[in-house]
Amino acid sequence: MSEHPISRYPVPEVKDLPDDLREKVLAIQESSGFVPNVFLALAHRPDEMRAFFDYHDALMGREGNLTVADKEMIVVATSADNSCQYCVVAHGAILRIRAKNPLLADQVATNYRKADITDRQRAMLDFALKVSNEARSVNESDSGVLRSHGFDDEDIWDIAAITAFFGLSNRMANFTAMRPNDEFYGMGRGMPADS
Amino acid sequence: MSEHPISRYPVPEVKDLPDDLREKVLAIQESSGFVPNVFLALAHRPDEMRAFFDYHDALMGREGNLTVADKEMIVVATSADNSCQYCVVAHGAILRIRAKNPLLADQVATNYRKADITDRQRAMLDFALKVSNEARSVNESDSGVLRSHGFDDEDIWDIAAITAFFGLSNRMANFTAMRPNDEFYGMGRGMPADS
Amino acid sequence: MSEHPISRYPVPEVKDLPDDLREKVLAIQESSGFVPNVFLALAHRPDEMRAFFDYHDALMGREGNLTVADKEMIVVATSADNSCQYCVVAHGAILRIRAKNPLLADQVATNYRKADITDRQRAMLDFALKVSNEARSVNESDSGVLRSHGFDDEDIWDIAAITAFFGLSNRMANFTAMRPNDEFYGMGRGMPADS
Amino acid sequence: MSEHPISRYPVPEVKDLPDDLREKVLAIQESSGFVPNVFLALAHRPDEMRAFFDYHDALMGREGNLTVADKEMIVVATSADNSCQYCVVAHGAILRIRAKNPLLADQVATNYRKADITDRQRAMLDFALKVSNEARSVNESDSGVLRSHGFDDEDIWDIAAITAFFGLSNRMANFTAMRPNDEFYGMGRGMPADS
Amino acid sequence: MSEHPISRYPVPEVKDLPDDLREKVLAIQESSGFVPNVFLALAHRPDEMRAFFDYHDALMGREGNLTVADKEMIVVATSADNSCQYCVVAHGAILRIRAKNPLLADQVATNYRKADITDRQRAMLDFALKVSNEARSVNESDSGVLRSHGFDDEDIWDIAAITAFFGLSNRMANFTAMRPNDEFYGMGRGMPADS
Amino acid sequence: MSEHPISRYPVPEVKDLPDDLREKVLAIQESSGFVPNVFLALAHRPDEMRAFFDYHDALMGREGNLTVADKEMIVVATSADNSCQYCVVAHGAILRIRAKNPLLADQVATNYRKADITDRQRAMLDFALKVSNEARSVNESDSGVLRSHGFDDEDIWDIAAITAFFGLSNRMANFTAMRPNDEFYGMGRGMPADS
Repeated sequence: MSEHPISRYPVPEVKDLPDDLREKVLAIQESSGFVPNVFLALAHRPDEMRAFFDYHDALMGREGNLTVADKEMIVVATSADNSCQYCVVAHGAILRIRAKNPLLADQVATNYRKADITDRQRAMLDFALKVSNEARSVNESDSGVLRSHGFDDEDIWDIAAITAFFGLSNRMANFTAMRPNDEFYGMGRGMPADS
Repeated sequence: MSEHPISRYPVPEVKDLPDDLREKVLAIQESSGFVPNVFLALAHRPDEMRAFFDYHDALMGREGNLTVADKEMIVVATSADNSCQYCVVAHGAILRIRAKNPLLADQVATNYRKADITDRQRAMLDFALKVSNEARSVNESDSGVLRSHGFDDEDIWDIAAITAFFGLSNRMANFTAMRPNDEFYGMGRGMPADS
Repeated sequence: MSEHPISRYPVPEVKDLPDDLREKVLAIQESSGFVPNVFLALAHRPDEMRAFFDYHDALMGREGNLTVADKEMIVVATSADNSCQYCVVAHGAILRIRAKNPLLADQVATNYRKADITDRQRAMLDFALKVSNEARSVNESDSGVLRSHGFDDEDIWDIAAITAFFGLSNRMANFTAMRPNDEFYGMGRGMPADS
Repeated sequence: MSEHPISRYPVPEVKDLPDDLREKVLAIQESSGFVPNVFLALAHRPDEMRAFFDYHDALMGREGNLTVADKEMIVVATSADNSCQYCVVAHGAILRIRAKNPLLADQVATNYRKADITDRQRAMLDFALKVSNEARSVNESDSGVLRSHGFDDEDIWDIAAITAFFGLSNRMANFTAMRPNDEFYGMGRGMPADS
Repeated sequence: MSEHPISRYPVPEVKDLPDDLREKVLAIQESSGFVPNVFLALAHRPDEMRAFFDYHDALMGREGNLTVADKEMIVVATSADNSCQYCVVAHGAILRIRAKNPLLADQVATNYRKADITDRQRAMLDFALKVSNEARSVNESDSGVLRSHGFDDEDIWDIAAITAFFGLSNRMANFTAMRPNDEFYGMGRGMPADS
Repeated sequence: MSEHPISRYPVPEVKDLPDDLREKVLAIQESSGFVPNVFLALAHRPDEMRAFFDYHDALMGREGNLTVADKEMIVVATSADNSCQYCVVAHGAILRIRAKNPLLADQVATNYRKADITDRQRAMLDFALKVSNEARSVNESDSGVLRSHGFDDEDIWDIAAITAFFGLSNRMANFTAMRPNDEFYGMGRGMPADS
C-alpha cells in the first residue's frame, strides 16, 4: 500500500465524519471493499461533499437511454482531456467493469477517436468534449447530430450534465492533488478482451 | 419584457415544481422581486437542481475571509472567460450591488487585469483563471503566491471550488442557452462610481 | 468621479493640443457632454492620433449597407474577444444607443452566439472573429457565406476593415491601459428592453 | 512578371486615383522603380488608404531610438506570426536593405529567437509578439524588462504601435489576398553576409 | 483476442518480410512472446521500417545516465500528450516492467505532474513536453535548469531526441490507426505497488 | 562567411567522422559545393545520424506520384509552422530549384494558403499540417478528401511520413539551434519568376 498523501488538504478519519456521511462512506466501503479517496478528500468540506454526491447520484443513477458504460465513457474521455488522474484511474476501473472490457478505458483515455466504440458513442464523446472545451459554441445543430444517432433530448442533457459535473470534479481533484487508490489501477483487467 | 425563450429545454411553471423547490423559488421571488431564470431552467431536472443549489449555497454562503464581493468577482471573471452570458449578467448585477460599485462588474468581465481591484484580488483572479483553464498544472507554488497575499488554505479552497462550481454552471448555461432576466442588466448601476 | 489615471502614458491637457485636434476634441465634448478618454490618451502622439481618427471616420462614417448598429456590434464582439476594456465599454454604450436596446451590448460582449441578433448578424460576427483571430485562413468561401446572407463585397470589406482597425485600437488600449470614462457604463441603459 | 491578381478586390489604375494619392504613388514608383502592390490594393478605398499611409508614415518615419532596421524587424517578426505574405516579403526586402544583411529577414521570419540579433532586439521582439497575441496581459512589468535593455517609454510605445498597426495591415492583406510584387523576393540578397 | 485491424494500411505476413526484417521480428516474438503490432504496421514500408528501428535502437539502447525507466517515462508522457494510443499502451507496459511499478505508467500518461516521480524526473518531463510542443523556444536556459538537476549535455540530447523520435512515431501511429496488441494492456500490473 | 556556431553541441570535423559518414558527407560536398550543416550537427551522434539519413532517403528518394517539388513543399510548409529555421531555409532553397520558381518557397513558408500552387497541392498541405498538429484526429475522411484530388494511398502515406519525419528534424534543429548555411539563402533566386 502506498504512503503518499491522498490530498493536499487535511483528510478526516471516517469515524469523525458527520453521521450521514460516515454512513454513506461505510456503505461504499462495504460494497467496494475499500473507501475511494474522493470520499475522504472531499470530506474536508462536508456541506460541499453532500451536494457533490447528490449531484453525482442524480446524474449517474438516473434511468435513461445512456447505459452505465456510456456514462463512464463520458467521464473517462473528458477527465483524460482535463488530465485528471483521479477520475481517469477510478472511472477507468468502473468502465472496464461495466463494459466488461479490459481494454476500453485505456483506449478512451488516450484517444477515444481510435477506441473500440460505435459511431453513436463517438458522436456522444465528440459532443462531450465540445461541452467541456467550447460550451460557448454549443447550439441546436449539435443536438441535431446527436438525434441523428438516436439520442433524444434527455440523453443529450445527460451527456452535457455529466461532462459539466465531472469538469467540476476534475478541477477539484487536480487542485487538491487527489490521489486515486492503488486498488483502481488493476480492477477489471482480468476479463477476456472483447468478450 | 422580452419574449425570448429562457432555455432550449422545457421550463416548468413555478406552481408545478416539487414543494421544496417551489418554496425556494417563491422565497427568492419575494426577496428579489423576480425569479432568476436559472431556477426555472434547471427545474427541468429537480434532483440536479437541488444538488446545484445546495452546492451553490455551501460555497457562496460559507463564512470565511473572502468577502461576498470577492466571491462574485471570481464568478464574473471565470464566467466571462467561459463566455457564459447568464452568469456574467446575473452575477455582474450582484457584484455591482455587493461591491457598491457600478463599474466593477463590466471591468472584471472584460479584463480583470485592468479592473479597479487590489493586487490581492488580482492574485485571487489569476489563480481562479488557472484553476478554470489549466487545473492540471496547479500546485503548491500557486498556494504560496496566494499565501503571500494573505489568503489562508481555506480561502484558497474557496477560490478553487467557486471556480470549479461555476465552471459547471457556465457549461450548463451555455448548453441550455439559458437567458439572463432582463432585470439583471440594469441592477446596481445607479450608485456613484467608486463611492 | 474616479481618480484613476486614464493611460500609463502622459495625457496632455485639451488646451495644449494642436489646433486641429483641440477643435476636434472640443466638438466631441460639445456633442457628447464629455471627452472620451481615447482622445486624450492618443493625443500623446498627435500625428498618430490624426491618422487614427481619419481611419476611424472613414470606416464608421462610410455610407453602406451595414447599419451603425451592425458596425458597433462588430466593434463590441471583436473587442470583447481581445479583452479590450475601453472599446467594450465605450462602444457598448454606443451600441445600446444606436440599436435602442439596453441588453444587446452586454449580450454581444459576453457571447454573441447567444445574443438577440439575426442570423445575418451572427454570420457577420462569425466572419469578424475569423478576421480577428485567423485572417490567414480567410478566403473566397467566407465571402460566399456572407453573400448568401445578403452582404455584398463592399459590406464584406467593411466588416473586415472595421475588425482590423479595432484590432489596432484594442492593442493600443490594452498597451496604454486606457481607461473608459465612467459615463459610458450607464449610457443607453434606460430604454425599455427589446422595445 | 507574374499574372496573378494582386487583390481579391478591384484594383484601380494609377491614372484614375485621386490627385493626392496618384502623386504619392508616382513618387514611390520613382524612388523604388515599381509600385508596391499595397498602394494599388488599398486604393480601392481612397479615404482608408490616406489614413493608412498617414499612420504608417507617422510610425515608421518618426525619429527616435529605434533604428529603421529595428522597426522593420518588428514588422517582419509580427507579420510572420500572423502569416502575412505581403508584409513578410515586402518588409523582409526592406529589412535586408536597411540592415545591410541578406540573411536577417528570413531568420526573423522563421524564428526570431534564433536570429543573428542582439539580446536587446530579442527583448524588443518578445514584447512585440506579446502585444500582437496577448495585449490583454501587457503591463508595467513588460516595460520594466524593456527599460532594463535601454529602451525608454517612447521606444516602447513605438514597438507597441508598430505592432498594432501592422496587425491591422496583416489582417487587410490576408483578407484581400494581397500579393507581394515579384521584385521584393530578391531585393537585398546580393550583399555579403554579416558584412 | 480482438479481430480489429491493426493498421489502416495493408499489413504483410511475417513470412513475406525481407530476410533481415523477418529475422528481427522473429527475434522479438521469441523474447516477448508476441509480435508488437508496430513491427507489422510499419513493415508496409521496409526501408522506412529499417531506419525507424535503427533510430529507435540508437536512442533507447544507448548507454548513458538516463535509466531505461526514465526513457520510457519520456515516451509515455509525450505520447499521451500527443494522444497516441499505440505508444501509451505499449510503452506504458514497458514502463511498468522496467520501473517495477504497476501504477506509474497510468499516472504519467494522465498527468505526470502528479505522478510518483522525483523532482529530477519532473524537470526531465517538463523539458520533453517543451521540445514536443514548443521546440521553437527551447534554448540554453532550459539546459541550465536540467543541469541543476544533475543532467549533463548528453542526457539532455537524449531527452530531446527521444521526444523528437516518438513525436514521429506518434504521428505515424495516429495516421495509420495503429492498434496496440491486447497483451500490452495487462502487462506489468501484477507487481506490488510502490515495492 | 559568418562565424556563428552551427549547433549548441560539439561539431566534429569531417575528417574525424566514421568512414561511412565521412564518405557520405564528402559526396554531398562534391555535389553541392558545400556541406549542409545538418550533416555536421547530427554527426555528434553517428548512430542516430545514420538512421536519420536512411529515413530521409527512404522517404525523399522513393519513387511515387509526389514530385520532388511536392515533397519539398511539404517540408517547407510544416517546418515553417514549426518555426524551424534550418529546414525552412535549406529546403526552401531546394524547393526553389526543384520547382524552378524563385517565389514559391517564401510563399509556402509564410502562408501556403495564398501560394501559387494548385488546389491539389493545397489539399496536400492542409493534410500535412493536420498530421503535424493534430494527428490524433486524422482518419479515413482525410484520405477521402485526398483521393478526390487524385492522391492514392501510397501518396497519402508519403505525405504523412514526410511530415512526421521532418517534425522530428524540426525538433532536433530547434533543440540544437542548428544554423542554416549562408549559401542556402540565395540559392535558386536567380530564375525568372513563374517561368
